[in-house]
Order: sequence, then structure tokens, then C-alpha cells
Amino acid sequence: MKVLKEKILREGKVLSDTVLKVDSFLNHQIDPAFTMDLGKEIASRFEKDSVTKILTVEASGIAVAMATGLALNVPVIFAKKKRAATADPNVYTSTIYSFTKDESVDIYVNSRFLSPSDNILLVDDFLAQGEALKGMVDIVKQSKASLAGAGIVIEKVFQGGGQALRQSGVRIESLAPVSSLAGGKVLFEN
Amino acid sequence: MKVLKEKILREGKVLSDTVLKVDSFLNHQIDPAFTMDLGKEIASRFEKDSVTKILTVEASGIAVAMATGLALNVPVIFAKKKRAATADPNVYTSTIYSFTKDESVDIYVNSRFLSPSDNILLVDDFLAQGEALKGMVDIVKQSKASLAGAGIVIEKVFQGGGQALRQSGVRIESLAPVSSLAGGKVLFEN
Repeated sequence: MKVLKEKILREGKVLSDTVLKVDSFLNHQIDPAFTMDLGKEIASRFEKDSVTKILTVEASGIAVAMATGLALNVPVIFAKKKRAATADPNVYTSTIYSFTKDESVDIYVNSRFLSPSDNILLVDDFLAQGEALKGMVDIVKQSKASLAGAGIVIEKVFQGGGQALRQSGVRIESLAPVSSLAGGKVLFEN
Repeated sequence: MKVLKEKILREGKVLSDTVLKVDSFLNHQIDPAFTMDLGKEIASRFEKDSVTKILTVEASGIAVAMATGLALNVPVIFAKKKRAATADPNVYTSTIYSFTKDESVDIYVNSRFLSPSDNILLVDDFLAQGEALKGMVDIVKQSKASLAGAGIVIEKVFQGGGQALRQSGVRIESLAPVSSLAGGKVLFEN
């Protein structure tokens, strides 16, 4: 997605060979109109897949997931991190490890929001080692719903998570696949 | 907001005299088109206030904040909970206590996203004791930006947070002010 790549080059900051900071428009401050365009683009890549629901994980995937859900006219679920006091005992859970935060966290989805007749599209802002995506795939499997695939805003291809998930049969559409951040320079795969 | 109140009566579950569960459309599963309507309604109540940015706190305020930002055509910032490894040292922070989760958490906003020339609208899904809102007001004060007010989807008026904040001069617009959950019944203030 050309406008996204241009925005990354203009506003993104390469903090190390693995860390790309895009907090001015994606995961701390959001540009709502631009986020709607990201959602429309993800939706267009899955428009023939009869998606019934979108699943993301809190927090930074929510805005793009909502934009995608609006474009596909389907509900959006965000998996929550750790059990809240008001949560139902009836939940699907998975444990994910965040390399950025160096901590493991449990994510959960109330089981009444996912059913075997659903066809789920996963949406997230970043794909790196793929931990969050693996956790969501795990939850979809537990629910016996079908998995349409995953729509990702920025994939750091060189960190391997996407490759492993594709090899396991998950269709992944990345709007901006980054092949390298070496030397402080953002290179895109295509 | 009539359609919101009807949706609360239809889909909400009163779990106790203080807990109203609305996870089917507001804070776990989201109805994107309905969320857009919530955002438009909040925006309409502040349309003459020259809002320059919206501030919410992750995670469940993000969808409504984005819808409001889209309607007002301004950026949305979501305060993050606790410091991530990639965060800038240059941040405004505040500590908030969650009665629901029985834990304190630090929220922070990168200081470059708020400036004294900004006029900030706070947005959140719930207002109960007002802890999250107080934390956001604190952050806005630190930045020396102006505060336009707060747009809230559901205010549990009987828990007093809104009253305390209004007395301190904060304008609060609640789309569904709940006066009581006693006896498993949702009563609205007006």
C-alpha cells in the first residue's frame, strides 16, 4: 500500500535493527481518516472470503480492526489481556509472549462471541515474531470457527513470524512488508 | 442517546449493584456501525468547541475515540498503560486505580503529541469513580493544553466520579447516564 509506505518513510523512526517506531499515526497517536483507509485496504483483500467477524488483540490493533469491520460490515472482537474481575468464566485463552515488552500475557475471548459457523479475519497493527497472531489462531482453533486469514498493517518480514504462520497454512496480507531495518533504513519487500 | 439506552436495556447484563456488562457491543465485541454513531453523537456535543485532539486510554475507549476523531476530523491519542521498552523517555504520566481490576496502573502519553495550543476532548467508554478520567485530566494539565471536556458512553452516575469532576470544572457529556443498577435493573437519569 503505497501511501502507507510513504507515511512510514516520512514519519517512522528506526530505533534499532528490529524496532520501527510509528507512534505518530498507528499505535499511540492515530490518524482516523488514514486508519479508515488502512481498514478499507485490508477489507478489499478479503472481500470475497465471506468473513463473519474480525478478531484483534488489545490495544493497538483495535482502531484498524474497527475500520476493517466497518468496511466489511461485520462485528469486531478484541481479545483482552488477562482476566478482569467482570469476565465470564466461559472463555478461550492463549498465552502470548511480547518480545518488545519482554513479558508473557494471557489473552482471552468470551466463548459466546465465536462459533463454528464463523469465518474469522485476524487484524493487527504489527507482525514480527508472530506471537500475538499465533495466540489468536490458537483461540480461533479452540472455537472451531474457520480462519479466513490475517490482515496486518506492518510486517517485519525479517523477524520470521509471518513465514512460520504461512507455512502452517495461514493466509497473511501485509500492507507494508518490511524486509530490513538495518543501518537505520526501512526497506520494503515489494 | 435513545438507541444506546435501548441497546443497553436489550443487551446489557447487570452483574451486581455496580457492574453493568456490555461486552456484546462496547468493550469486548464491538458493533462498528453503532460505534460510529456513538462517535458522531459525542462529536455533535462538542462541535463548536474547536477541539484539536482527542485523548483516550487503552483499550476499550479506542474504538469510540476513533469514531469521534473521524467525525471531528482530528487526531486521536490513546494513553498507554505502563512503559513499553520502545517508549520515549519524554512522557507525561499519571497513576490510575481500577476498581474493577483492583490494581493501580501508570498511564503515559508522549509529550510531543500534546502542546499548549491544543484543545483536548477526553473520550472513554465508561465513567464510574472517575479514576481514568482524572488521570487523563492530570496529563492534559501537565501538557498545558486546554481541556474542552469529556465525552462518555455510559456514566454510572451513582458512583460519583462524574460529580466530583464536574465540581472541579470539567464539562462531561454522557450519552447514557445510569442512576442505578439496584435490584438488577438499569435506571437512566434522564
